[in-house]
Order: sequence, then structure tokens, then C-alpha cells
Amino acid sequence: MAVYTEVSDHDLRRFMALYDLGEVLSFKGIAEGVENSNFFLQTERGPFILTLYEKRVREDDLPFFLGLMKHLAGKGLTCPLPVSNRAGEALGTLAGRPAVIVTFLEGLAVKRPAAIHCRAVGTALAQLHEAGRDFASTRENALSLPGWAPLFARADGQADRVSPGLGQRIEAELGFLAAAWPSGLPTGVIHADLFTDNVFFRGSELSGLIDFYFACTDALAYDLAICLNAWCFEPDGSFNVTKGRAMIAGYEAVRRLDPEEGEALPILARGSALRFMLTRLVDWLNVPPGALVRPKDPLEYDRKLAFHRKVASAGEYGWEPVG
Amino acid sequence: MAVYTEVSDHDLRRFMALYDLGEVLSFKGIAEGVENSNFFLQTERGPFILTLYEKRVREDDLPFFLGLMKHLAGKGLTCPLPVSNRAGEALGTLAGRPAVIVTFLEGLAVKRPAAIHCRAVGTALAQLHEAGRDFASTRENALSLPGWAPLFARADGQADRVSPGLGQRIEAELGFLAAAWPSGLPTGVIHADLFTDNVFFRGSELSGLIDFYFACTDALAYDLAICLNAWCFEPDGSFNVTKGRAMIAGYEAVRRLDPEEGEALPILARGSALRFMLTRLVDWLNVPPGALVRPKDPLEYDRKLAFHRKVASAGEYGWEPVG
Repeated sequence: MAVYTEVSDHDLRRFMALYDLGEVLSFKGIAEGVENSNFFLQTERGPFILTLYEKRVREDDLPFFLGLMKHLAGKGLTCPLPVSNRAGEALGTLAGRPAVIVTFLEGLAVKRPAAIHCRAVGTALAQLHEAGRDFASTRENALSLPGWAPLFARADGQADRVSPGLGQRIEAELGFLAAAWPSGLPTGVIHADLFTDNVFFRGSELSGLIDFYFACTDALAYDLAICLNAWCFEPDGSFNVTKGRAMIAGYEAVRRLDPEEGEALPILARGSALRFMLTRLVDWLNVPPGALVRPKDPLEYDRKLAFHRKVASAGEYGWEPVG
Repeated sequence: MAVYTEVSDHDLRRFMALYDLGEVLSFKGIAEGVENSNFFLQTERGPFILTLYEKRVREDDLPFFLGLMKHLAGKGLTCPLPVSNRAGEALGTLAGRPAVIVTFLEGLAVKRPAAIHCRAVGTALAQLHEAGRDFASTRENALSLPGWAPLFARADGQADRVSPGLGQRIEAELGFLAAAWPSGLPTGVIHADLFTDNVFFRGSELSGLIDFYFACTDALAYDLAICLNAWCFEPDGSFNVTKGRAMIAGYEAVRRLDPEEGEALPILARGSALRFMLTRLVDWLNVPPGALVRPKDPLEYDRKLAFHRKVASAGEYGWEPVG
């Protein structure tokens, strides 16, 4: 949850004067989004979200993210649509930061998803992958295998402060993944951060996906592995295979996994668990003074990793090869 | 800015089932409000604010606050109107906390008010005082003269950590105010916290007042002194008498100050500056670990106090006795 940047009424007025959105009726910081400052913006034309990009988002990447949202929305995916100003630009500057207005999506994030939600997320993820097929731009995944060792280096030998032996467990995992990481899987646009915060529902019906600021080009099945991690574990740390099966079935109803993708799920799940553990670990060790963000627990992903290490085959996630 | 309490979808669904507000279409924590957790709540019936009362608000006081908002809204003042559930209750329980849904007010808080805003605030304040005349309940101001010494005691001798000599300046001020504090001024319902955050405008037109959780029964002119402090100083610390004059004129267009009230403004301004300095000081010294709130600077009010101490007469605030 975060609003990092305060916006003066003067700056807001000047910024909004560039748009055809009528008078601003309300403007409130939202306690959501870890990377950026988000504001609920009500104008005479309706509700919008105004996002200021803080320093963790590279400005060079913004055209990719905004272009992707436009592309996906154009294909019928319910995601925020960047709003262009009168000059035809979606990307502007406000309070010294890159700023974008996007359409407002209805729906609620589900904090305790049931299998029906997992199925819907699987379906939406496959729809995203299909809709992204003909998106022309690409963006390397900075948080994939080659990025993990440098990320771990930023924890600066402090991992054991968080949990005894954690540093060694990460080293071992990095070594294993470097040797075993699959190549040659189908790639394309992935969301790469489809956690429960980023999916809205009306009842059990999925109403939208948000937060495309980790989207990149990578193995499609890796995106599914991220979702298995994010959606299918119970609060007690156990993996719920019913939810896993529902998610994979939802995915395969739109896009069937190749056998290589299915078989790679255990290692992809390990990799994605490590990726989130590492970013959380670095955040945990580097909470700036005066931060308004409560860092997420890296050990949640240490426990998930321990589960994945014991998995013998993708069947334990609910995937079944076609006979 | 604050969301202290997370609300699960399960709890929200159960709570909303008590209301006739239709399906929840959106629910987002708002980075606003220091005392409570506030959420933007969009339902099929429109936009609302859902507030969870955190421990700083005494539950016993809630009927006063909610009753006051209903009373004032009934008199035509634009303030949030508590929404009753099907059982006719405005006050409920959510996530283990007292919870209320109120109507949503359009408008923007003005961070750098001009004289025209100050005038509008003066007028709205007098309207509030007039509308509150026949409100039957009363609530003692816990943050008036008798409350200041105990509040200072909670700073526990640490004031000089914030600024050298601050403890002594506060002691001296407490002594002076104890001797000089006026009595017998007209009393009634006061807002007691009408800072810029709590007043919404559309353009230069005032569109609503919010946050009645310090409202109480006290000298009406004290409320005006709070507003002079909150609205009429410039960022460089100087008092802008044009704004003061506009505010007082706006006030007196609705309710003329008695001569005693006008003459008491300098001391009321000192008292209210001390009151906000003290609460800020205690907050500053007691930021809980993991707090999502950036405490406000107590020294802003130390500087305002220094100005008030040099004021010779209420004319310096822009008040003129009737000839």
C-alpha cells in the first residue's frame, strides 16, 4: 500500500487541463500498489486511476507497458486502458514523475481465493497469453534466471538475519536452477505478477486484471507457475491441489500446455518462488526510514520453495499429460 | 494517510449484506485520515466512504459524531451522511471495529488555499455553528485547556529532543494560558479540526466538510482560531492577514462575533496552536514501529505560536470591532 508522492492542487489542475476529461470531482490517494503512487480520480467523464511511476519502474519501459495494456484491451481483455490527452499522448508528467491516467475497473480483489477463482485466473492468464501473441514489442524479464544471482547479491550476506540458513538455501537453489532451468519452452507476453491484488472479481466472475508493470517476454508456463504459487497455497502453507487443478484446467480450456511445459512446472514453480523470495528479501532488508510500506514476508516463499523441492512430478500441481 | 485495518472479502460481504446498497463494485483503502481506516466503497447505489474507527476514537463518542453529521446534513450543510442498515443502525462492526458507511462527497482538498478559499471556510464554519445551535447532545472538548498539561506529560520530558528549549516554551505557554484563558464566550458545537484536508472545493466553491471526529462543545470563536492557524499561514511561516480578514469576513457574513470573541482571538489562537503542537509532539515521539503514518511536524506550530505571542490585538488577524 503506498502513496509516495503528494500532488498539489496546482499541479493536478495543470495536468488535467491537458485532457478532455472535464472537471475533477474527486482525487484521493489509494493505499494500494507497492511500486507506484495510485490515485482514485473522479471526473465529469467518470472514474479513473491516475498512476505516478516511482523510481522502481524504468521510464524506458513505460511505452511497453502502456502499449501492452492498449493491445490487450483492444483484444477484449478487461484491463486498464491508458487514456490519451488532447495531444494523443498517454504518458505525461505530474509532480516530476511520469504519470498516466487509466480507466477504472470494477471488482474486488479476493484475499482468500476458492477453486472457482483459481480456475477463472487460469483462464484469464491463458487469454492474456493468447491476446499477447501478436503484440509487436518485447521486453526482457529482468527478474528471470540471470537476474537472480545479482538480486541475491543485493541482500549482501544478510539473509541469515531473516532466517538461519536462508543464505545457504538460496545458494543451493540458485545452483540447482542454473543447471536445470528449461529452455525452448513457448514464450510470449507474460504478466509476471498476477497475485490476488491484481485480479478483480464480481462475485466469482473475474472482472479485470491490473498492474502490468512487471509484464515482459518469457516462457508462458512460467507465468502459470507464478500463479500457482500466488493462488493455490493455503494460509497454513500447504498446497491445495484442487485449486491447482482448477487453475490449470482453466488455463488449458483456452490454451493447452505442451507436454514440455507441463513437465517443467515443478522447476518453474521453484524458480518463481525463488524470484519472489529474493525481491521480498531485498525489500525486507532495505526498508527505507519513513517508508509507508510494510514489506512482505520473504519466508512465505521460503516455505513454498521447500514444498516445491519435494514435488516429484507436475501431477502434484494438478497437471495431467494428455493420454 | 492511513489504512490500519485490512478487511477480508468474507467480512466485507457479511457486513454489506446488512445494507440495502446492492452489490459492491469496488473497495479500496484510501491514504487519508490519521485516526481511522477509510475505504472508497462503490456499490450499485453509488459511491460511499466506509470508515473503521481505530482505537484513538472512543466508541462511546460515536453516537455524538454520527448524530451530529445527520443533524448538520439535515440543516443543509454538505457533510457526510451516515447510511443506516436495514435494521436502522448507522453504526456497525467490521473486522472487529466499529464501522460506518457515509455518503461520498465530491470535491478536492486545497493544499495551498487562497483568500477566496479562506473566506468560504469562514462562512461554512459559521454555518456549522448556526446549524449546530439546536443539536441536543454535547461532548466535552478533551483537547481544551484542562487537557493540555496531561497531554504534555505524555511527551515525557522528551520535547527538547525535537527542538532545544521546546519543553520550556511549552511550560511557559501552559502557564500563561491557564491564567489568561477566556471564559464566558458563546459556546456550541465546534468542528475543532477544520484543516485543509477536511474541506472540499469544486473550483473556489466549497463543496463539503468532512471528518467530524474531534467535534465537541466549546467556544465557537476557538473553532475560528483553529481555522486561522490552519488556513492563513504561508509556507514560509508568515501570517497572511488578507486571508485572515477574508476568513473572518466570511464568518461574520453569517454570524457576527461578539466583541469579547473578537478580542479573545489572539489568546484563542495561542491555545489552539499549542493544542496542535502538543498532539503532534506526542505523535512524533511515539511513532509505533511499522506505522504507515508519517507524523506531522510539531515545530510548524511552535513557529505559529511564536507569531501569536507577538500579536498585540485581534486586528492583526484581520478582525475589526464594529464601530
